[in-house]
Amino acid sequence: MSDNSFGHLFRVTTWGESHGPAIGCVIDGCPPRIALSEADIQPWLDQRRPGQSKFTTQRQEPDSVEILSGVFEGRTTGTPISLLIRNVDQRSRDYGDIAERYRPGHADVAYDLKYGIRDYRGGGRSSARETAMRVAAGAVARQVLGAGIRIRAALVQVGTHRIDRGRWNWDSVGDNPFFCPDPETVPVWEAYLGAVRKAGSSVGAVVEIVAEGVPPGLGAPIYGKLDSDLAMALMSINAVKGVEIGDGFAAAALTGEENADPMRMEDGRLVFAANHAGGVLGGISTGQALVARFAVKPTSSILTPVASVTRGGENVEVSTRGRHDPCVGIRAVPVGAAMMACVLADHLLRHRGQTGHDPRLA
Amino acid sequence: MSDNSFGHLFRVTTWGESHGPAIGCVIDGCPPRIALSEADIQPWLDQRRPGQSKFTTQRQEPDSVEILSGVFEGRTTGTPISLLIRNVDQRSRDYGDIAERYRPGHADVAYDLKYGIRDYRGGGRSSARETAMRVAAGAVARQVLGAGIRIRAALVQVGTHRIDRGRWNWDSVGDNPFFCPDPETVPVWEAYLGAVRKAGSSVGAVVEIVAEGVPPGLGAPIYGKLDSDLAMALMSINAVKGVEIGDGFAAAALTGEENADPMRMEDGRLVFAANHAGGVLGGISTGQALVARFAVKPTSSILTPVASVTRGGENVEVSTRGRHDPCVGIRAVPVGAAMMACVLADHLLRHRGQTGHDPRLA
Amino acid sequence: MSDNSFGHLFRVTTWGESHGPAIGCVIDGCPPRIALSEADIQPWLDQRRPGQSKFTTQRQEPDSVEILSGVFEGRTTGTPISLLIRNVDQRSRDYGDIAERYRPGHADVAYDLKYGIRDYRGGGRSSARETAMRVAAGAVARQVLGAGIRIRAALVQVGTHRIDRGRWNWDSVGDNPFFCPDPETVPVWEAYLGAVRKAGSSVGAVVEIVAEGVPPGLGAPIYGKLDSDLAMALMSINAVKGVEIGDGFAAAALTGEENADPMRMEDGRLVFAANHAGGVLGGISTGQALVARFAVKPTSSILTPVASVTRGGENVEVSTRGRHDPCVGIRAVPVGAAMMACVLADHLLRHRGQTGHDPRLA
Amino acid sequence: MSDNSFGHLFRVTTWGESHGPAIGCVIDGCPPRIALSEADIQPWLDQRRPGQSKFTTQRQEPDSVEILSGVFEGRTTGTPISLLIRNVDQRSRDYGDIAERYRPGHADVAYDLKYGIRDYRGGGRSSARETAMRVAAGAVARQVLGAGIRIRAALVQVGTHRIDRGRWNWDSVGDNPFFCPDPETVPVWEAYLGAVRKAGSSVGAVVEIVAEGVPPGLGAPIYGKLDSDLAMALMSINAVKGVEIGDGFAAAALTGEENADPMRMEDGRLVFAANHAGGVLGGISTGQALVARFAVKPTSSILTPVASVTRGGENVEVSTRGRHDPCVGIRAVPVGAAMMACVLADHLLRHRGQTGHDPRLA
Repeated sequence: MSDNSFGHLFRVTTWGESHGPAIGCVIDGCPPRIALSEADIQPWLDQRRPGQSKFTTQRQEPDSVEILSGVFEGRTTGTPISLLIRNVDQRSRDYGDIAERYRPGHADVAYDLKYGIRDYRGGGRSSARETAMRVAAGAVARQVLGAGIRIRAALVQVGTHRIDRGRWNWDSVGDNPFFCPDPETVPVWEAYLGAVRKAGSSVGAVVEIVAEGVPPGLGAPIYGKLDSDLAMALMSINAVKGVEIGDGFAAAALTGEENADPMRMEDGRLVFAANHAGGVLGGISTGQALVARFAVKPTSSILTPVASVTRGGENVEVSTRGRHDPCVGIRAVPVGAAMMACVLADHLLRHRGQTGHDPRLA
Repeated sequence: MSDNSFGHLFRVTTWGESHGPAIGCVIDGCPPRIALSEADIQPWLDQRRPGQSKFTTQRQEPDSVEILSGVFEGRTTGTPISLLIRNVDQRSRDYGDIAERYRPGHADVAYDLKYGIRDYRGGGRSSARETAMRVAAGAVARQVLGAGIRIRAALVQVGTHRIDRGRWNWDSVGDNPFFCPDPETVPVWEAYLGAVRKAGSSVGAVVEIVAEGVPPGLGAPIYGKLDSDLAMALMSINAVKGVEIGDGFAAAALTGEENADPMRMEDGRLVFAANHAGGVLGGISTGQALVARFAVKPTSSILTPVASVTRGGENVEVSTRGRHDPCVGIRAVPVGAAMMACVLADHLLRHRGQTGHDPRLA
Repeated sequence: MSDNSFGHLFRVTTWGESHGPAIGCVIDGCPPRIALSEADIQPWLDQRRPGQSKFTTQRQEPDSVEILSGVFEGRTTGTPISLLIRNVDQRSRDYGDIAERYRPGHADVAYDLKYGIRDYRGGGRSSARETAMRVAAGAVARQVLGAGIRIRAALVQVGTHRIDRGRWNWDSVGDNPFFCPDPETVPVWEAYLGAVRKAGSSVGAVVEIVAEGVPPGLGAPIYGKLDSDLAMALMSINAVKGVEIGDGFAAAALTGEENADPMRMEDGRLVFAANHAGGVLGGISTGQALVARFAVKPTSSILTPVASVTRGGENVEVSTRGRHDPCVGIRAVPVGAAMMACVLADHLLRHRGQTGHDPRLA
Repeated sequence: MSDNSFGHLFRVTTWGESHGPAIGCVIDGCPPRIALSEADIQPWLDQRRPGQSKFTTQRQEPDSVEILSGVFEGRTTGTPISLLIRNVDQRSRDYGDIAERYRPGHADVAYDLKYGIRDYRGGGRSSARETAMRVAAGAVARQVLGAGIRIRAALVQVGTHRIDRGRWNWDSVGDNPFFCPDPETVPVWEAYLGAVRKAGSSVGAVVEIVAEGVPPGLGAPIYGKLDSDLAMALMSINAVKGVEIGDGFAAAALTGEENADPMRMEDGRLVFAANHAGGVLGGISTGQALVARFAVKPTSSILTPVASVTRGGENVEVSTRGRHDPCVGIRAVPVGAAMMACVLADHLLRHRGQTGHDPRLA
């Protein structure tokens, strides 16, 4: 058991604090002879990198990744892969106040309640900075999965504004600072978030992740279900408050007739006429697209003073100045995709361990 | 790693198929000297037992639990607790059809895709019958947690009908066959579900679980968060498609100001003026009520024929006759509460392992 | 983590006390579609069964195993396999004394020091009765490994009497009550142990296990080494005080020249001219025979009074009457072989999980 | 599951290759508020450091450790502790030959058989260099255990030469380059190993570890026994071929009378008149000194040519020039002690997790 690890056969352990010298991860169990270099990882980190638009925190981190072990002559060796990113822009002075005053809605108070000590600089371990290592691990997971499995993510709701799903266009996702798949929604969010930012406020968001090419058979009932592992993985991302698969909460309002995904054999292959299930039945992938969604709450760093307490037990009002994310959901998009990649890589190895069969080769 | 286990220090492993001779579980890591007998478990199983109203399956199972190990003279010994329930009402003839014809929306096809073999009788391992062992394990977890931590659950939505939260009354939950906390909604659901049942249809539901008296400090960032473990635990319940904590998906539409839970010291104790967070910050309990919700899809067993395929690859229409649950969400209520009890017991032991401190004694 | 489980992908959880209603185990992760019935398990249990000669305890247990789950129409389904053995001969009256008086050299006192409670009947959880489930699990592991991997064990030392390794004959092992591979040593042990038994004394023993046909590549450095997992598995057997692989402790006295196992390619296959390593290099199997040995201490149940204390803290003299094993090492022989089978099955699944390759097919 | 991790609640994951840029480890689960700085770790690393006498490899590595996370203002925070040591003296040219030619008795061939790829530089992952991180982790474990638990180790046999246990003097261990507790044996080993070194040969050794002040109750039957976890931990050290607890293999030759450790209450405390058990009964510590021993084989790097094969399948003779350890057992001494510290720290946390009781406070 390890509280800072996830996955079982493709197992990722992360470490590091926001303002320590570095953050890093160790990936254990990676198959041998997989092509891997820093160039396979860096582009994904660049997607998540802060400071790329005015809608994310202005902290400047190149997030330049180093591979310290587990790779030899451009190939994985089957031994643990150690990845390291030096922290560069640790302006500790920005955060002096939070040593003593708990931000309402932030993990500050909870860490102190649990551990009686806390690296408060930049949020310490609870900072979203940790998610860089999820993205790095996800990049390795993608190498393991191979090109046949395509994992993409998009932002589908910002505050009260949702996209129009009828206009969904994956090609648009890379064209705007929001990972928005609906081009017409981009200016709406731009204006909306601009106002939120100026007000020193913040809003929540919803992220959707879709994996295509997932072979059937991944996931292991009852407690190693593909969807329960996904739920764990996504809920562990900072600020996430809800996770759903396929129709998710909307399925509660459906009848059995509406929810059934009809099946047919076509040219010797199993095809489904709908995907309410989001690609999972009984915790096992069916070969359909795997669809997950998660809700991100608004960051607690806001200008408006809110009633709070100090470490010493005094009542105070707390407001947060300095750089922050008006919508942390934006940078959660590549993080969510990375977590799905890791979960799939883990289940691929688990499946072939138990069955001796690689479902990608079916 | 074990796909049929959950929890780490309070660890539950379940086994058994719907129509095998028995189902059971092994609970490992239970603290010693906890009072435990069958009488502590049976009442919780009785809540989940099928056939208690016309709104759940008519299968008749007394679900009579036996303790086979780990208890001596009425106290746990610290060794594994083995629980067993004999299956009594396995009418295999009811299910003959499903050996060959996959029910759309059911795990039948997924099990065959994964394993190439499947105990089809009554759904085999994918049957909701397995959840009896979750309830039994949850009863043991409650003994570990003690009376100071109170875990209750209720049904808050059936199909398209939600309760009025303003009328929430915990005392009503035991008074109706739906675990409904809103007395005025009971007749609405009764009429609605009666019609669903007569039509041989089914509907989904939403369950809410609330734990009061949870001490602060439970849960371990980053990947052993209390909420991510809860998400895993709840998503692993049959037919669950979504999980949320506190405001959940609604948090996406909030601003930071709306979402902040103000804090105050009152009489030397930390109190919160709101609970949007649902009792968890940074993956750690804060001492507020822990609130989770999950969505259950409609069961796939319906009278209306739906396009499907056979094991042999032929196109067919499948409809399900015989006993079934018009709303499996009803029986998921005690199951959800049991899962929360197990997660809390596990995290209590984990917390005192790392910190040496029992937060209930604070 | 589970203190009553071992293995990772082929994972065995045992439960039960000596004088409870039953003992059992759950095997999780077994590959699907493996032929399995009670008839595959019972013969191995019969080897370990007590009361077969005057040199083992006279407790009469048929050790009749029931498969309660995970097998359908004679094949494993990939779901957990639950095995159960009812306890039949629990003569609790034999053991009344040990409720209060700790046997020197026995786990009695340690369980009380740890848990503050103990099922003292027949040794409770610390009884060698638990090893029946190891043998049952080992039988399932053998089915997974297949006929190409042959695991045998023998007793090579009883008290001060060792076999002559030059006379080693596997065919003899089944011909005598000691699993002795040296026919000429059988009468020596018979006379020696007869005297030990009459004196109400006991002696230790050494068991050797040899697995042939083990494919190369099993075992995972650094902490999942085949030999370190074997060491853990064998040391966990009751009364074991030492484990060695290949030349073991004798290797300490060798030079590098003596210890090197020369390699040659012969007919395109790698062959070794010696096997000091016992089939493992760097924690990974080489394709040579896997050789392990373990030392079993004498049982603490002896007639001679030894100074001891009571639960209440009084000084007493303790001697044990009633049935006991003059040499528990005898019944440890099939247990050791079973543990090696389980470790190999686990590593086979782990290897193909990580590499996607079944080394038996090379 | 992770093949490069050990421990459960105090969990150590190591990474790195002999000639990569660095080696490191992540320690997860460390209790919060423990005093820790590099100065607590470095002295232990200095004990293991190569090149300190002519009897160990001449590789020059300062083994200077950096703490990258998990410590704030001199105290652990409860978050993962990342430790890093840069590799300095990677003379890759020394090892060019071993890319293609397998050293008999070395892990070279096994890694290739398993992974089909291998970082051959300096032995890559199979190098004893990895053990530096065990020592570093052990230093952290000692901080967790506190001053009341004292763990020491010594070399008790080198090749065919054993110490005289009657002359055992812990104070001597630090006075000679062998960690020898018997001053009169030092010159014997000096002459013997000098000759071995000059001949380009190597010899094995036996290491003994003793922990005093271990509280009773640590260790968890049946598969989380203190001694089985120790066996795993020690057998995982490079070149180890055997592990024993207490009397170990010698116990096989004892009678029950000889092996019993008599107990008495003295001044209200439980005392034992002997310690054949080595401090463990039934897998649980008794409060006596914990005694373990392990055998180290001679290193395979020797001047004498031995028959071997190449990666390409040709027969060759292999001899090793360049720096090497004539007796790797010497540097295994601090490594063994470190592993015992880690196992004890893990079991301390596990015990207080399950029982809620810190046995050091009894």
